[in-house]
Amino acid sequence: MIKHSATLAINEKIAQRRARGETVVHLGFGEAGIPVLPEAAEVLASAASRTDYGPVAGSEDLRTQIAGYFDRRGRATHPEQVLPAPGSKALLYALIQSLPGDVVLPRPSWVSYAAQAALAGKKTIWVDIPRDAGGVPDPGKLQHRLDEARRHGADPGILILTIPDNPTGTVAPAATVEAVCRIAAANGITIVSDEIYRDLAYDATSFCTPADFLPDRTFVTSGLSKSMALGGWRVGFARVPATDEGAAVRDELIGVASEVWSNMATPMQEAACWILSEPPEVSAHVARARTLHRSVSLGVHEIFRSAGAVARTPAAAFYQYPDLGSFETALRRRGVTGAEAVSDHLLETYGIGMLSGAAFGDDPAALRFRVATSLLYGSTTEERWRAMESADPLELPWIRSALDRLGDALADLSIDSEGADREWERV
Amino acid sequence: MIKHSATLAINEKIAQRRARGETVVHLGFGEAGIPVLPEAAEVLASAASRTDYGPVAGSEDLRTQIAGYFDRRGRATHPEQVLPAPGSKALLYALIQSLPGDVVLPRPSWVSYAAQAALAGKKTIWVDIPRDAGGVPDPGKLQHRLDEARRHGADPGILILTIPDNPTGTVAPAATVEAVCRIAAANGITIVSDEIYRDLAYDATSFCTPADFLPDRTFVTSGLSKSMALGGWRVGFARVPATDEGAAVRDELIGVASEVWSNMATPMQEAACWILSEPPEVSAHVARARTLHRSVSLGVHEIFRSAGAVARTPAAAFYQYPDLGSFETALRRRGVTGAEAVSDHLLETYGIGMLSGAAFGDDPAALRFRVATSLLYGSTTEERWRAMESADPLELPWIRSALDRLGDALADLSIDSEGADREWERV
Repeated sequence: MIKHSATLAINEKIAQRRARGETVVHLGFGEAGIPVLPEAAEVLASAASRTDYGPVAGSEDLRTQIAGYFDRRGRATHPEQVLPAPGSKALLYALIQSLPGDVVLPRPSWVSYAAQAALAGKKTIWVDIPRDAGGVPDPGKLQHRLDEARRHGADPGILILTIPDNPTGTVAPAATVEAVCRIAAANGITIVSDEIYRDLAYDATSFCTPADFLPDRTFVTSGLSKSMALGGWRVGFARVPATDEGAAVRDELIGVASEVWSNMATPMQEAACWILSEPPEVSAHVARARTLHRSVSLGVHEIFRSAGAVARTPAAAFYQYPDLGSFETALRRRGVTGAEAVSDHLLETYGIGMLSGAAFGDDPAALRFRVATSLLYGSTTEERWRAMESADPLELPWIRSALDRLGDALADLSIDSEGADREWERV
Repeated sequence: MIKHSATLAINEKIAQRRARGETVVHLGFGEAGIPVLPEAAEVLASAASRTDYGPVAGSEDLRTQIAGYFDRRGRATHPEQVLPAPGSKALLYALIQSLPGDVVLPRPSWVSYAAQAALAGKKTIWVDIPRDAGGVPDPGKLQHRLDEARRHGADPGILILTIPDNPTGTVAPAATVEAVCRIAAANGITIVSDEIYRDLAYDATSFCTPADFLPDRTFVTSGLSKSMALGGWRVGFARVPATDEGAAVRDELIGVASEVWSNMATPMQEAACWILSEPPEVSAHVARARTLHRSVSLGVHEIFRSAGAVARTPAAAFYQYPDLGSFETALRRRGVTGAEAVSDHLLETYGIGMLSGAAFGDDPAALRFRVATSLLYGSTTEERWRAMESADPLELPWIRSALDRLGDALADLSIDSEGADREWERV
């Protein structure tokens, strides 16, 4: 039984509560929360009459623009090396299906990798992330875990990295990526690098792809759902290595695509073409979004830190991964133990929605949570535009009140007395 | 290795030939060839600013409209019984993944079912279609094949029917559907009924769904790619039985969706909502398209029949499935044997593209072909509108010339002398 993706599930649960008139600070869903660039919507509108299927591999124009996207980021790419799809999720699934071997995952990592591996009938081998950043396995633990997995009958073949990372909002340092690549190469493992947050690294120079170290064994996926906040448009793409094996895997991906989703909707292909040509208005939109993500994510991080939570400082996108271990005793006195129960308690008592780390493969007993900050920007398009345009978005009233509510909830959470809950119920 | 879908592959091959300036009579691809209804394109254009992910199960509005689509066709449906997706292909894949057991298929049947079964790690059990219509197994052979499959270690659990049918363009008679349902029930088999061509049955009263006979065990898939010719928009939907098992399977489908494609692009959902509310302009557009499909399909059928081919009379959509067995001797003298070789010969020598029945699971030695007639309507939007509006589309010059070319090619094909080829090369 494949369960409904946890991130999508909490989003729907919170939407239902809001529909009932409840106030919820929504920190549960990785939707980028940025209004659509009007020029992009115009391009889509003008392509509305395109109803032909088109090639499974996407139009030549689109593949050329995708190749250009990688070219401009220092990695020369031929249009035959790329493949668009309705979302990078579909391509990640097809890669897991097509590449040989079981799946090695950083723990924690994005909710869907492990579920996709299960769907493809593959085992998952978890490796804890290092202390400094997520999205990569700890190089000091990787070889040991691979050996152990083999002894238990697994066949580790695919290592998925997320750079920058969801859920931790960090960017793995080059030295760590290089160390991981060296171990992958020594073990004959192929790397799938999920780089959908690449353009949202606060410091572009911090980003480093495994394709720099292992160009012939790295498959990259990306898309427009995060940088351009176009999740509902379903625009993703993959890049395969410029090798015979890369070409063979691309053929295989096209085979899976042709039997499962055919291709990206044709009007979306036209819109994606224009966006991926990266005209100045697109780059400016992404840059403004990145600045907003950074301000709010760092603001939320400061609240968690002040309250006594431990969290890596976010360096990309709109995620952070606080550890509420210091609240454990107080929570246990309330009868709340384990990450799932704390997540429910936060939603029910304080109207604060955030996903437990267990959804990302983490230890369910650890009180770690994935906090997504991008839905704080506003509940209307107008509020979101004002957040994009604000020099100090933390002082916009709707953002300020959410942050205050979070701070108050965390302060209350550390109080041992039972009276605290009743106080909140009156809010 | 999952091969690129045969129907999509021939489409791309023919597009390349045309790009080189060659004339090709394109009978190889099931794209409906009908221009977009302008009002539908306007609805999509006005939804271009929708960028949110939305629920995996689709918006409530969309599910309500899909339920209404079934309601209006005599099958009361709750919005919780339906699921939209980017194409019914994706839902067929998810159903094959989610329902227990191996897959029983009529031979021939649509190219993707068997490939999807392979992708899901399931066996395929082929059963020949009866003489009168395709899309269903011959009831007289079904039980025997099920017993035989079980003896060989298979576990037949899912029977896929296509009503109306692709590749034969026929509509299985009610008595046959009922007989098949009775055998399925006796064997504990679940039915997946692919009804994407339902609204294109030339005689609406001829259509009959297995859901009439086996309501609790029939899952239905459909979409807008054929009736509204919106293949490039990727709009499909499924209906599950109103039972606990139906609800459980729907949860499972949502699970697969959430890990593979998330959902239908949000702007497309809005467009689908409007279309599935079936305002008069939509019904009129489908009716006009159906009339055009009928005229051209019957015209092409007459050409095949006159040339000595054997083919069931098309009764729906834009397909027919001629048997060129009477040309076998003449073709063998040219050194051309087997359906694949004849298909290549027709494309290379006569510029006529049609798929061999082997692509649909049929005997590769039999000279049967899937002929799709919908791309004859024109190569421009203007030509296609003129075909839609014409009282006698067969007399439009671009359609007439394609039909004449087909007739001449078939006449030439039956000539034994080797001189024939050279004559054609000068065209």
